[in-house]
Amino acid sequence: MVRFELLHEDTSGTKARRGRLHTPHGPVETPIFMPVGTVGSVKGVGPDDLLTLDAQIILGNTYHLMLRPGEALVGEMGGLHRFVSWNRPMLTDSGGFQVFSLSEKRKITEEGAAFQSHLDGSRHFLTPERSIDIQETLGADVIMAFDECPPSTENRAYLEASLARTTRWLHRCVKAWSRERSSLFGIVQGGLHEDLRKRHAEEVCAVDLPGYALGGYSVGEAPEAMHDGVAYSAPLLPRDKPRYLMGVGTPVDLVTCVEHGVDMFDCVLPTRCARNGLLFTSEGKVVIRNAAYARDNRPVDPACSCYTCRNFSRAYLRHLFAAQELLAMRLNTIHNLHYFLGLMAEVRRAVAEDRFATFAREFRARAKAQEAERTRGR
Amino acid sequence: MVRFELLHEDTSGTKARRGRLHTPHGPVETPIFMPVGTVGSVKGVGPDDLLTLDAQIILGNTYHLMLRPGEALVGEMGGLHRFVSWNRPMLTDSGGFQVFSLSEKRKITEEGAAFQSHLDGSRHFLTPERSIDIQETLGADVIMAFDECPPSTENRAYLEASLARTTRWLHRCVKAWSRERSSLFGIVQGGLHEDLRKRHAEEVCAVDLPGYALGGYSVGEAPEAMHDGVAYSAPLLPRDKPRYLMGVGTPVDLVTCVEHGVDMFDCVLPTRCARNGLLFTSEGKVVIRNAAYARDNRPVDPACSCYTCRNFSRAYLRHLFAAQELLAMRLNTIHNLHYFLGLMAEVRRAVAEDRFATFAREFRARAKAQEAERTRGR
Ligand SMILES: [Zn+2]
Ligand SMILES: [Zn+2]
Repeated sequence: MVRFELLHEDTSGTKARRGRLHTPHGPVETPIFMPVGTVGSVKGVGPDDLLTLDAQIILGNTYHLMLRPGEALVGEMGGLHRFVSWNRPMLTDSGGFQVFSLSEKRKITEEGAAFQSHLDGSRHFLTPERSIDIQETLGADVIMAFDECPPSTENRAYLEASLARTTRWLHRCVKAWSRERSSLFGIVQGGLHEDLRKRHAEEVCAVDLPGYALGGYSVGEAPEAMHDGVAYSAPLLPRDKPRYLMGVGTPVDLVTCVEHGVDMFDCVLPTRCARNGLLFTSEGKVVIRNAAYARDNRPVDPACSCYTCRNFSRAYLRHLFAAQELLAMRLNTIHNLHYFLGLMAEVRRAVAEDRFATFAREFRARAKAQEAERTRGR
Repeated sequence: MVRFELLHEDTSGTKARRGRLHTPHGPVETPIFMPVGTVGSVKGVGPDDLLTLDAQIILGNTYHLMLRPGEALVGEMGGLHRFVSWNRPMLTDSGGFQVFSLSEKRKITEEGAAFQSHLDGSRHFLTPERSIDIQETLGADVIMAFDECPPSTENRAYLEASLARTTRWLHRCVKAWSRERSSLFGIVQGGLHEDLRKRHAEEVCAVDLPGYALGGYSVGEAPEAMHDGVAYSAPLLPRDKPRYLMGVGTPVDLVTCVEHGVDMFDCVLPTRCARNGLLFTSEGKVVIRNAAYARDNRPVDPACSCYTCRNFSRAYLRHLFAAQELLAMRLNTIHNLHYFLGLMAEVRRAVAEDRFATFAREFRARAKAQEAERTRGR
């Protein structure tokens, strides 16, 4: 089981917290960003790279792993940690989010969700019980409740019905959960409706669990709307438990949502952007394919100490990307993950030193200025 | 300039030699296998992986680099070593082989070869002088003469004319060569004709150069025909200079051609096969996508000490390959290069200990038995 230790609460006027999540595979210092290892590998890098980057915890996706290679196989091979050779903490999602993203290929009933695989069209049925069973077979340190994340375009009546069902599903998850090595987190939904978030938070947090998450953000709404939503939702979660904001986000999102009291984040952004040649740096975003970098002998980010920046020029990275060399993907991913993980290390220091309000304000101002300069076509 | 030190000649009845090639970027222990870094990266791995694998020298391809990013850019960025962040020895080919492989898109004259880029159809003209200039700009430790490698199907009259022209081109290369940091190797052609090989070897070796190569092998002929050819061609090259067999080959090819007195090899085989999921092991070839490995918790090669075999199961590698995860390419490539480089380390020990005849005989017998067992569909 995991246990959350609340180390410090910022006194500079934000709700930011500095914590430590104790897990069977060691501690996780929060606030933390968790790289996403969709089908059993964080795309572009190896576990060796992740250790060098000092990633503390990574994700696996239940939907992808149940389809390929199948959770039974992973279980036979000794569980997900051993299968992917990662001896630090892991978290798996419930599969719900991906299934509901299939839109046409799935059907929701009270019992669960029927869906067709995006790989081969094969038919599957995911229920709260089955999701927990799969996740416990995979054996992650943190597992997530099976919930519905309804499209933000759904009307209020649908949302209310969906939330009630998600609550009933949570009770079924709790009943199915063995309470052994994997710790179950509940998920609060409710879209951008403050009253629904409040009601659902009450229902979910009435169940005593090792941690709680906010789902249904960063699904198409404007960043400001998400920030506003998290501002009132995060404090609805228990103070003494870890708060995980699922699927978020950009560097500004991370800083802003830490300010609202979030402890854990995951997002494919740094890894996906890396594969598309978009690099996050202390000087703003770098689109590495730009002709401006063809003869640029500087590292991507002169202030960065990652393997990529210590050894390679922008000119070389641009060349590798243009030639679609495999190494481009790895070097870009190493840099972007270093940026995200390094940012969270800075965040933790700023919280611990009671200067997070200033840190967050300056960070956002700098990001805004850099983006303005970039889009002016520097 | 490079300098070859002949350390030992096998006394067990083979022509195998143990040597050391001193270069401006450190020594290379021979016999050696050189991984191929086509467009400025050894596909699938980084320089960090190559150092861990203790690769001693890598290749770059002039044809690919002149087209993208262009040798002038690489030169401006401080040369190929610095551009790709590889501080050990490098070798570049002359571009001839790739240009002549374009068949329809190139035209050869006495002056040189006109060709169209496979990337964008742009027109280029490669001459002996231009090839040397490009290679010296890239700045590899060893550069190669610009030669024609005629198709093995060409008639004798064409071959004789081609060889005479390649000799004239060699003299032009030597004249263009600055004799500064890059050392020029001559290339002996002649297909599978013993008399032509002999005549051309005399012409090429009449020019005093730091090393000599055999070209025009492994271009479609049967392995036995290639082995027979190398058996009479390698001894035609000076005893006190390094002998480089270009574009070869399989593990059996390497062992057999070392037996005939070859010191240096390069081939895309281990890296290309890795990307296709074919792994070389002490127990024979492993086609990692095979269903037989789905639940195989053993490493690819229980006798292997590479990063891949120390950390991952066949089941995981099969899963990564099936899911086309980037990590599959890297882990497979690390293993195959480890196998090839490890084989050459064993070869060097066997030569030094005067037991190479037995080593080679046993290696071939084992390879034959393993391949028979594999193709019987174990
Ligand atoms: Zn960096
Ligand atoms: Zn291995």
